[in-house]
Amino acid sequence: MDESRKHDRILIALGGNAMIGPDGDASVTAQQAAVARAVTGVAELVAAGHEVVLTHGNGPQVGNLLTKNELSAHEVPPVPLDWCVAQTQATIGFTIQNALDRALRRVGSNRRTATVVTRTVVDPDDPGFTKPSKPIGRHVPRERADQLIALGQTWQDRGPKGWRRVVASPQPLDVLDAGTVSTLLGAGFVVVAAGGGGIPVVPDGDGWRGVEAVIDKDLTAAVFGRALGADVLVIATDVDHVMLHFGAADQEAIEATTPARLRVLAAEFSAGSMGPKVEAAARFVDAGGRRAVITSLDHIPAAAAGTFGTVVTGQA
Amino acid sequence: MDESRKHDRILIALGGNAMIGPDGDASVTAQQAAVARAVTGVAELVAAGHEVVLTHGNGPQVGNLLTKNELSAHEVPPVPLDWCVAQTQATIGFTIQNALDRALRRVGSNRRTATVVTRTVVDPDDPGFTKPSKPIGRHVPRERADQLIALGQTWQDRGPKGWRRVVASPQPLDVLDAGTVSTLLGAGFVVVAAGGGGIPVVPDGDGWRGVEAVIDKDLTAAVFGRALGADVLVIATDVDHVMLHFGAADQEAIEATTPARLRVLAAEFSAGSMGPKVEAAARFVDAGGRRAVITSLDHIPAAAAGTFGTVVTGQA
Repeated sequence: MDESRKHDRILIALGGNAMIGPDGDASVTAQQAAVARAVTGVAELVAAGHEVVLTHGNGPQVGNLLTKNELSAHEVPPVPLDWCVAQTQATIGFTIQNALDRALRRVGSNRRTATVVTRTVVDPDDPGFTKPSKPIGRHVPRERADQLIALGQTWQDRGPKGWRRVVASPQPLDVLDAGTVSTLLGAGFVVVAAGGGGIPVVPDGDGWRGVEAVIDKDLTAAVFGRALGADVLVIATDVDHVMLHFGAADQEAIEATTPARLRVLAAEFSAGSMGPKVEAAARFVDAGGRRAVITSLDHIPAAAAGTFGTVVTGQA
Repeated sequence: MDESRKHDRILIALGGNAMIGPDGDASVTAQQAAVARAVTGVAELVAAGHEVVLTHGNGPQVGNLLTKNELSAHEVPPVPLDWCVAQTQATIGFTIQNALDRALRRVGSNRRTATVVTRTVVDPDDPGFTKPSKPIGRHVPRERADQLIALGQTWQDRGPKGWRRVVASPQPLDVLDAGTVSTLLGAGFVVVAAGGGGIPVVPDGDGWRGVEAVIDKDLTAAVFGRALGADVLVIATDVDHVMLHFGAADQEAIEATTPARLRVLAAEFSAGSMGPKVEAAARFVDAGGRRAVITSLDHIPAAAAGTFGTVVTGQA
C-alpha cells in the first residue's frame, strides 16, 4: 500500500433492491428518487478527493424486462438475458449519472461522470449453466410455466405464489472492460460500470459472445475492484451491519472482522441474500484489497473511511 | 488542418435500418449478422492507424421497445422514450463491440473497444415538442390509437396500414458525454457512442433530465464529430451514393460536392429519409470538418479516404 497517497480508489456497489421505491415500486420516478438518495454520500467522497467507481444491482429491473419479453413475444422477438442486463446498465447508469451530476454540483465539485457498458467473463462450464438456481422475474401459474419450460427455460414451483424462472448465475472471472474504466478514472471521471454484475460473456473462437445468465453484482464487484486496484469496496444495501441471528432476540451486529471470521459467522447464521455480499467482501480483502465494508446506503462515507458498518480487513 | 498528421479521427455513423436483417428482421441473430458485416471496413480503418468512433441508429430497435411497453403496461410500469434510447445504446453497443473485437483480431490489431452511454442536449422549447412528427413503432387500429391518445400520446392516421405514434425529434445542440469519448480515443480505444442520436436531455435546475423524444442520429453525428475534432464523418447507409431523381430513368449519383450545392440538389429532389443525412453532412463540413461522405456499409474505407460515395468538402 502506498502510504503517501492521501486519497483512495473506492468501488461502491449499490444494491438493486435499494434502488427501487418502497414495496418494490420499480416505476421510473421511484427509481429516480431512490438513486438521488444513494448518490448523496457518493458525492461527498468525490468532493473529498477520492477516486470513485459505482456499480449497481438490477434484479427488479431485469425481472421487468423478462416479463415484457414474455408478454410481447407474439409481436416482438424476445431478447436474451445478456441483452436485458445490458439494457439495465444503460438505464440505471444514465439515472445515476444525472443524479450524481446534480449531487456533485451541490457539493461544489466539477468532476465529470461517465457510464461504461461492461462485459464480465464467465466459464461456459460453470455449474450454474447445468443447474440454474437464481430466481428471477414474476411468478406465473403452473400452466404458463409449462409452456415456457417447453421453450427451454427452467421454472420452479415456489409454493403459493406460483412458479418462477430460475437462471444461471455463474462466477465472475474477469471484467473485460476494466481497462476502459481505469482510463477514465485516471482522467478524473466518476464512473458507473459493471452494472448488474456485468453482461455475461464466454470465450468464443477469436472473441466473446453473450450468454443467458445473470452474475451476482457483489461477486463481480470483488473481481472488478481488484482489477482496478481499488483500496476500498463498499457494499451498500438496506441494513447498517451484517447481523448475527438477524431478527432474533439475541441478534448482534458484526463490526470489525476478517475474511476468515466473517465466513465462519456466515456459515453459522443463515446468510440468505447476505451470503454473496459476505463472500464478495471476503474475496476482495483476500485478494489484497485494504478494506471491504457492508452497510446501508445512508452510511457510505463513514463506511468508506472504515468507521461504520461491517468492516472487513486483513487484520481484526 | 494539421498536414503533418498521417492519421485521421473518423466518426462513422451506421444506419439503424442497415443493422437489422433483410425485410426488417430485428431478431437478435439478424442484428448480430448485420453488425458483423458493418464492422469489417471499420476494422480496416483502425488497422491503418486511424482513430475511429462509431455511432449508430436505433429506429427498429426503439420501435420494438415501445411495442413491448405497450403490450405489457398492465403488468410492468412502461419506461419513457429516453430510457428506450438508453437501452438500445447498450444492446447495440455491446453487439458492435463483440463483433468489432473479432474483426480487429482478424486484421491483427490489438486496439481495445468501449461503449459509452451518451446524453445529447436538446432545447425544451424545440418546435418538435409542440408538433411531434417523427413516426415510430408499430401500426395499430384506430380504436387502440384512441386509447393511447387518451394517455397523452400523439398518433397519426397513416392510411391502410393503420395508426402510428409520432414523437418529438428535436435538434441536437450538444453531446454531454463527448469528453468521455475524447479521453478514451486519446488512450487508443475504438469507441461506440451517441447511439440513436444520444439520450435526449434538457437543462433542469442544477442538472439535466431525460425527455420523451428521439434525436436524428446523423444530425447528432454532425455535432458530435465537431465536438471531438473529427476530420472525417462517414454516414453509412444502404445506398452507394445520394441519388438525384432516385428510381427515375435519368437518376444520377452525386459524387464530389459542397454543402451549398448538396443542399440545392436536396431541395430539388424529394430527399425523404436521405434529408437528415444530407443536412448532417453539410453541417459537419460547414462547421469545419474536412470531409463528410454518404455511402453504403460496404464502402466505409474508401469513403473515409474520400475516393467513393457522395463526398462533401468545403471545395468541390
